[in-house]
Amino acid sequence: MAGFTPSLENLIDKFASLPSVGRKSAQRLAFHVLGMSDSEAESFTEAIARARESVHRCRICCNFTDNDVCSICSSPERDKSTICVVEDPRDIIAFEKTHEYSGLYHVLHGVISPINDISPEDICVKELISRLGEGNVKEVIMATNPTVEGEATAMYISKLIKPLGIGVTRLAYGIPVGADLEFADEFTLIRAIEGRKNI
Amino acid sequence: MAGFTPSLENLIDKFASLPSVGRKSAQRLAFHVLGMSDSEAESFTEAIARARESVHRCRICCNFTDNDVCSICSSPERDKSTICVVEDPRDIIAFEKTHEYSGLYHVLHGVISPINDISPEDICVKELISRLGEGNVKEVIMATNPTVEGEATAMYISKLIKPLGIGVTRLAYGIPVGADLEFADEFTLIRAIEGRKNI
Repeated sequence: MAGFTPSLENLIDKFASLPSVGRKSAQRLAFHVLGMSDSEAESFTEAIARARESVHRCRICCNFTDNDVCSICSSPERDKSTICVVEDPRDIIAFEKTHEYSGLYHVLHGVISPINDISPEDICVKELISRLGEGNVKEVIMATNPTVEGEATAMYISKLIKPLGIGVTRLAYGIPVGADLEFADEFTLIRAIEGRKNI
Repeated sequence: MAGFTPSLENLIDKFASLPSVGRKSAQRLAFHVLGMSDSEAESFTEAIARARESVHRCRICCNFTDNDVCSICSSPERDKSTICVVEDPRDIIAFEKTHEYSGLYHVLHGVISPINDISPEDICVKELISRLGEGNVKEVIMATNPTVEGEATAMYISKLIKPLGIGVTRLAYGIPVGADLEFADEFTLIRAIEGRKNI
């Protein structure tokens, strides 16, 4: 006997194919699923089916929503003159938690990455440009991740936006609040020095 | 907006309720499931349904199987005079990988644990005793984990077996092969000294 019984091995394989689930975790998950009550198992597979059916991209900002337009884009309280461009819907949650930003968002669903064969056409760039064509917007904040690809994507998009006469900004780099300088990497420190301010 | 759209939040909740899946991993898994092709998603939920339908406990040893009797119990090549008692089907996989053990197994599906309200009736003890009543078996190897509960369970079961005139053994304790003595805990070292052998 090399492994578990076929249908169990198959289930373990499926779990192991999910991102950041190793073989051991996949076994644990499969065993857990076997031990679920019928109603638990049903509500689990039902949740998968329902999310896949209802969740799609907001017609305006490409964030995930169950409706045609997401709750942020349809809110009358948001400042419609500012758009914060992020890579991923999870980044919106992070910004919303601050309760500081009241503008709109735009989700790219990825970054330009020649190595991974992801070109501007594969992410939601044209949706952003067409939004900007409608007027209203005064500033676009590029909030892609501070990685090589995130930087390149921010640069690429800002070059597309500037001819439209709209301001483009980038999030500030520096020491994370509460961090220990001793453990800051040199690139972050260089940016922190470059960006120093009078006090 | 406090979180994601409702059907997506629901799916994240379901993933987060799985063992050792945190909130961040649950988000990653849910996003991955949303990005699956229809056929991938179908084969995933299908694998869950099929495993839950086909997998059950072997009538003899309580290991998981798709059949009435598992492949080990039904193999004519296994030594039917020895039974190795384990807590979990995963332990069988570990023993089988050694290619050293050719006897049968018995899966308890847990250990006795008063703290967690698990009594002998909640694990497959009576199935083991009824197997022993049929004759043939000469030795039972207690291979529960070397934890307080594993020890207690091994002691409890061995007391039930001894009156039947069947030998009961316990796995040897000691330094794991390849380990660094410096990092061995004191209990393991004590057991290693107690169990020392002439060379």
